[in-house]
Amino acid sequence: MDLNKLIKPKSIAIIGASEKDGFGGDCTRNLFKFSDNLDRVYLVNPRRDTVFGHKCYKSVTDIDDTVDLCVICTPKSTVIPLLKETAAKGCGGAVVFASGYGETGLEGKKLERELIETANQLGIAIMGPNCAGFANFIDKVFSFAFLVEERDRTGNIGFISQSGQVVLAGLDLPTMGFSYVISSGNSCNVKVEDYLMFLVDDPDTKVIAAYLEGITQPEKLVEALRKAARMKKPIIVLKTGKSQKSRQIAASHTGSLSGSDQVVRMLMHRYGVIEAEDLEDLCGKATAFSWLRELPQGNRTVFMNVSGGEAGVTADLVDQFQIPLAEYSPETRKCLSGLLPDYGSINNPFDMTAGIGYNTPLLVKALQAISKDPGVDMIAMCYTITPEIFDATISHMVDAVRIVCEAGNNKPIVWINFIEHTRHQESAFILKRSGVPLLATGHYAFRSLKAIQTYALSQIEDLPVSLPEQKHPDDSRVLSEYDSLCFLEINGVPIPPCEMTNTLENTLRAGNKLGYPLSCKVNSADIQHKSDVGGVKLNIKNPEELADAYQTIMANVAEKCPQAKVDGVLLKPMIKQGVEIIVGVNNDPQFGLTVLAGMGGVFVELFKDVQMANAPLTFRQAKEMIQKLQAFPLLNGYRGRKPCDIGALVDLVVKIGEMAALHKDRIKELDLNPVIVTDDGVAIADALLVQYIPS
Amino acid sequence: MDLNKLIKPKSIAIIGASEKDGFGGDCTRNLFKFSDNLDRVYLVNPRRDTVFGHKCYKSVTDIDDTVDLCVICTPKSTVIPLLKETAAKGCGGAVVFASGYGETGLEGKKLERELIETANQLGIAIMGPNCAGFANFIDKVFSFAFLVEERDRTGNIGFISQSGQVVLAGLDLPTMGFSYVISSGNSCNVKVEDYLMFLVDDPDTKVIAAYLEGITQPEKLVEALRKAARMKKPIIVLKTGKSQKSRQIAASHTGSLSGSDQVVRMLMHRYGVIEAEDLEDLCGKATAFSWLRELPQGNRTVFMNVSGGEAGVTADLVDQFQIPLAEYSPETRKCLSGLLPDYGSINNPFDMTAGIGYNTPLLVKALQAISKDPGVDMIAMCYTITPEIFDATISHMVDAVRIVCEAGNNKPIVWINFIEHTRHQESAFILKRSGVPLLATGHYAFRSLKAIQTYALSQIEDLPVSLPEQKHPDDSRVLSEYDSLCFLEINGVPIPPCEMTNTLENTLRAGNKLGYPLSCKVNSADIQHKSDVGGVKLNIKNPEELADAYQTIMANVAEKCPQAKVDGVLLKPMIKQGVEIIVGVNNDPQFGLTVLAGMGGVFVELFKDVQMANAPLTFRQAKEMIQKLQAFPLLNGYRGRKPCDIGALVDLVVKIGEMAALHKDRIKELDLNPVIVTDDGVAIADALLVQYIPS
Repeated sequence: MDLNKLIKPKSIAIIGASEKDGFGGDCTRNLFKFSDNLDRVYLVNPRRDTVFGHKCYKSVTDIDDTVDLCVICTPKSTVIPLLKETAAKGCGGAVVFASGYGETGLEGKKLERELIETANQLGIAIMGPNCAGFANFIDKVFSFAFLVEERDRTGNIGFISQSGQVVLAGLDLPTMGFSYVISSGNSCNVKVEDYLMFLVDDPDTKVIAAYLEGITQPEKLVEALRKAARMKKPIIVLKTGKSQKSRQIAASHTGSLSGSDQVVRMLMHRYGVIEAEDLEDLCGKATAFSWLRELPQGNRTVFMNVSGGEAGVTADLVDQFQIPLAEYSPETRKCLSGLLPDYGSINNPFDMTAGIGYNTPLLVKALQAISKDPGVDMIAMCYTITPEIFDATISHMVDAVRIVCEAGNNKPIVWINFIEHTRHQESAFILKRSGVPLLATGHYAFRSLKAIQTYALSQIEDLPVSLPEQKHPDDSRVLSEYDSLCFLEINGVPIPPCEMTNTLENTLRAGNKLGYPLSCKVNSADIQHKSDVGGVKLNIKNPEELADAYQTIMANVAEKCPQAKVDGVLLKPMIKQGVEIIVGVNNDPQFGLTVLAGMGGVFVELFKDVQMANAPLTFRQAKEMIQKLQAFPLLNGYRGRKPCDIGALVDLVVKIGEMAALHKDRIKELDLNPVIVTDDGVAIADALLVQYIPS
Repeated sequence: MDLNKLIKPKSIAIIGASEKDGFGGDCTRNLFKFSDNLDRVYLVNPRRDTVFGHKCYKSVTDIDDTVDLCVICTPKSTVIPLLKETAAKGCGGAVVFASGYGETGLEGKKLERELIETANQLGIAIMGPNCAGFANFIDKVFSFAFLVEERDRTGNIGFISQSGQVVLAGLDLPTMGFSYVISSGNSCNVKVEDYLMFLVDDPDTKVIAAYLEGITQPEKLVEALRKAARMKKPIIVLKTGKSQKSRQIAASHTGSLSGSDQVVRMLMHRYGVIEAEDLEDLCGKATAFSWLRELPQGNRTVFMNVSGGEAGVTADLVDQFQIPLAEYSPETRKCLSGLLPDYGSINNPFDMTAGIGYNTPLLVKALQAISKDPGVDMIAMCYTITPEIFDATISHMVDAVRIVCEAGNNKPIVWINFIEHTRHQESAFILKRSGVPLLATGHYAFRSLKAIQTYALSQIEDLPVSLPEQKHPDDSRVLSEYDSLCFLEINGVPIPPCEMTNTLENTLRAGNKLGYPLSCKVNSADIQHKSDVGGVKLNIKNPEELADAYQTIMANVAEKCPQAKVDGVLLKPMIKQGVEIIVGVNNDPQFGLTVLAGMGGVFVELFKDVQMANAPLTFRQAKEMIQKLQAFPLLNGYRGRKPCDIGALVDLVVKIGEMAALHKDRIKELDLNPVIVTDDGVAIADALLVQYIPS
C-alpha cells in the first residue's frame, strides 16, 4: 500500500478540529504551530464556523479540493462513515486516534476487522487506530495528538513506535532531530513493517529508531532489514517481549502478539540491527548514529580525560565493554610528550591534565596528532558537559573539537559524559555541527560507542531466511531414531553406519557386518526415553553379548511398554569418546526455522550455553555460533588434547540448516543429542525428528 | 588522628590568598561565596595588603589568633616551612593542594615521606597533597579549589573521593545534597579510611558515597564498614581497579596501589557496601538513599505507568533486574477497578491510563489503596519529568505523590524516569521534601531500586575478618599430599582414611587395613603433577594389583624424577562417584585470607563458576557461596539423583576458613581439588598446601 498520501499529503482535513483540550484541539494547535504551509489544510467540525480564527467546514464534502489525508479526531463510531465520505474526495490516508479496538477484547477486535476491510476497499492507508499520529519534519506536516514544546526538531532520524508515549519521549529530547515520527498504534492495515520499509527507502532518513511490541509480517520485516543492511542504514530497535509480563502488556496495549520474541531478535541480529535495552538507550544510540559524520574504519580508540580519577573510571568501562585501546605510534608519543606538562604521562585512557585540556591550541595539536596516527580509528572525549559552563575546560575542549573537525580529515570523534545532565545547548550544537555525537553517561555512552563500532565492522551475509509460506498443520508425529536418521541421510546429512533389525538372526548378521564393539537400542517411535525402559545396551563386544542384548531389550520393552509399536533394534558401532554437542531445529509458526547448537548435558541446562540462528545459515554464521559458545575451548584443543574437527561440526550445522529450509513445511522439531565431535569428525549418536502431518 | 581541626575548624588561614585564577584565588573566592561566618578566616599573602577587600596578613605568625586549619595554596617547596610556622599557632589541620608528590615517581615519594614525618611530628592532619580540598556544609566551611555554581548544596551525603574532578562532578549535580565533600588526594597522613570513619561517626551524615582507587589500612576499613553496617548507614562505593589499566592509572594518579582489588570488593560485599559501576551510578544511588524517607520492609513492588508502551519497557526491566512484582489484594483490585476507565486493565506494571494519571484525586486514592495493601512493600512511579512541564501528567503525578506522603503511613515511593534530563527543579524538590527519590533513567534507575531493596533486606553477620598482623615471609614451601592432609587433620578438618608407606611389605599391610578397591599415589613434595610421571594408580582391587602398582610407581618416579625426594606412596580407599568441587584458600599480603569454592574441572576454567569470601566465614555465608554457584543444581538433586550432602560441604568450607584464620601467618595457599561430594558426605580427594617459612 502506498503511504505517500498518508505521510506526505498535499492536502489535509482535520475532522473534529476544535479549540478544546483533547485530540481535536491539541492536534489542531500542533498543526498550526509546526506546519509551514496551511493553504491546503481544512478544518472540519459541524458545530463550529471557525477554529482559532480559521474557517471551519461542516463536513468533508463541503471542501472544494481533493483531500489526501484525513485526520479523524472524533470517536470510533464516526470513523467508518467518515472514511467513506472522504474516499469520495480522493483520500488515500487517514489517522485514527480513537481507541477501543483490538486492544480491548473480542468486541474491539471485530470492530478493527471491519475497519480494515472498509479501509482496504476504499484504498485508504490507516495510521492507528489507538495511535498518536505522526509528524513529517521534511514536508512540515504535523498531525500529532500530544502537545510538545515549540522548537525545530528537524533532523535525519526516522522514528516508529507502537506507543504514542514513547514518541513523545523522543520529541521531548532536545538533542534528537527527526525526518519522521510515527505512532503506529494498533497498525490495522498499515503495519510497523510497512513504515519501516518507507523509512528504509526514504532518502531524508539516515537512521531508523523503532519501539516494537510485535511483528505480524515476517517477510516484509526481513525485506526491510536486508535492504537497510545492504544500504548500511542503521536501524536501532527497542523491542519489548523479553518477559512474560511485557508480552501480556503488549497484547492489551496494541493487541500485538509478541510471541516468537527470541526468533525476532535472532532475525534482527542476522541483519545487523542494533538492539536497545531501554528508552534512554534507544534515543541515545539513534542520536549517536544521527550525529556521527561517518562510521569508523575500526575500533581502536583513544580516550581523552582531564582527570586521573575519570581516566580510571573510563579504563574500567573500556574493559567492561571490551573496546580495544589504540596504541600510539612513536611519532604520536613524541608529539604528545612535547605538549604535556612534566607531571603528566602519556597513556590511554589519556589524562591530558589541565595543561592540555585547558589550552585550546595544544589540544588541537594533540587531537591532530592522534587523528593522523594509523593505529587509531576513533577518539572519545570524556568530560561532563553541564547545563551552564562554570568550568572553562568544557569550552576549551568543545572549541578544540570544532577546530579539528572543521579542518577535516580527522578520525570519528564521540563525546562521553560522566553525569546525567541536559547539556549546555550551545556546546551541544557545536558538537552536532561538527559530527561529534554527544553520548550520555558511562553505561549508556559505552553501549552507544560499542554499537557504533560493532555496526561499522559488521558484514552482513546476504542469505535470505526461509520463512513459512503456509500455516503449519496442527498435527505432528514423532519418528523413531532409525526413521529420523534415514530422513537425514536422504537429505544429504552424513549419518553413522547403522542397521535396523527385528530378528535374532538378522541382528547377529548385522552385528558381524558392522563390527564390534557396538550399541544396540530399541527402535520405536513410541519410546523416547529408551534407557528408562531397559531399551539400550552399549559396548557390546561379541555375538554372544549381542544375542543377549537383543533378547533382553525385546523382553524389557515388551514388559514395560506393551502398547508400543516396536520396529526392532538399531545397531551402531560404538563411537569413540569426544565432546558432546547438541544440534537442533525448531520451527516457529510465524518466523520459521531456527537452528540451535550448544554443548551437551549440563552445559545446556545449567549454563544455557547455546547459540541460535535463523535457517538457512552460511558457513561463517555457523562458525560464529560455535565459536561463541562459552565452552568452545573444549572443542579447540583443551588442556593439550587434540583439537576437535570443528570444520565437520560447522558443515553439519550448515547442512541441518539447509535441510530444514528445504522441508520447512514438514519439520516441526529436530534434536540431534548428542552429536559426538572428535579430532577426526562428527557422529550423530541420537536423533529425534518430529514431522508435521499434512491435513 | 583527630580530624576535627581539619574538617570542622573554628579558625582558618588561607595561605597564598589571591584574586588571580588558580588555587589561591579560586579557593578564596569559594570561601567568600559559601562560608557563613568569616570572623575567624585569615588571608595570608606577603605580597598583598588586601584580597577582595579583606585584610591580608604577611604571614601566619602575624595573625593574632590561634589557627585550627591552614589551607596551603602555594607551591610544594613552601609546604614544610609553612606547617612548622602554623604549628606554633596551634594548627591541627592543613589542606595541601600542591601536586608533584608520591604520584610522580621516586623523588616525589621521598618528598611525600618527608611531608608525612613532619606533619606527624607537628600533630597536623593533612588533606592531600595533590587534592582539591573539602567543603563542610554543616559548619559552612568551604575550602575547595575548583569554582562551582552558586547554590545551596547542604544535605546528608558524606562524599569522599581520591579524585578532585569526581568531587566536582558531584557538586555539579543539582539533586545532590552534602554534609561534607572531601577530596583526599594522595592521602599522606590521613587516609580515605580515616575520612570514612569520620563520616560513619558523623551524625549529620545519613549516606556515604566514596570514589576509591586503593586502600592502605585494611583494619581501619573493616572497622568503618562493620560500624556502618551495624548502624545501617549505607555506604556506596565506586572503586576503580577492576582492569589492569585502571590499576596503572591509579598508581600514577594518587600513588595508590589498588592491587588486591578483588579482595577489597569481597570485603565490601561482606559488610553490605553498595557497589557503583560508574559515576552516574555512584551519584544516583547516593541521592536515592539520601532522599528516601525510610527503607522498605520488603521488595514486592508496584510500578505505575501512564502508557502501555512504557509499562512494557518497565516489565522487561523488572524482569532483567529480578524485582518481585507485588500482587494486589482483592480489596486493592476492587478499589483500582472503581477508579480505572473501561479501556484500562489492572496489572503490574500498571498502565493507569490518563484516566488516573491525569487526575490527582483519583491517583491519590489509587496510591493510598496500594500503600495499604499488605502485599506491597514499595511503589515506583514511572514517568519522565522533563525540564519544563508541557505535559500536565507530571504535575498531576507529583502532586498526588506529595499529598499521599504528607498524609503519612504510605509505603516508600521512588520515581523512575525513562529519558535523560535535568528534571524540572520545582517538581524535583517537591519529591525530595516528600522523601521520594528521583531516580535516573531505565538501567540506572533499576540498579538504584535494586540496591535499595537489597540493602534494606541485607543482614550483616558480624564476624570480623582475619587480617594480617605482620608482613608475610618471602619464602614458602610446598607440602606433599600426605603432609597437607595431616596438617588439615591436626586442625580439625575431617580427612578420608589414608596410609603413607614406603616399603612393599608395609604397603600390602596398609592395603589390607584400608580395604579394596583403593588408590595408590606417589607422595612427594617435589612432584605436583603425579599422573604425568606415572605416579598414580586407581581402582586397585587386590594385593597383587597393589604390589604391582607400588613397584611400577616407584620405578616410574625414579626414572622420570630422579631428583625428587620421594616419601613413599599414599594409599586411600576409592571414593564413590560424586560431584567434583574445588575448595581453596589464598592469602593476600594486605587483606589476608580468602576462601574459594567452586565446581571442579572445566566449570572453574571455562565458566569461572566460583565464589569467594574473606575468612573466617559463617555457615550462612558459606551456604550462600555454594548456592550462588551456577552449577548448584548439580549438587541439589539434579535430574532425579539423590541430593548431595550440601551441609557437609558447607561445614568443610567453614572449617577451612576457621583453620586458615588460625594459621593466617603460616598458610600461603591451599588447594583441595577435587573434593568429592556425595549423598552422604564429602571427601577430599587431593590436597596441596603451601606454607610460609618464617625467616
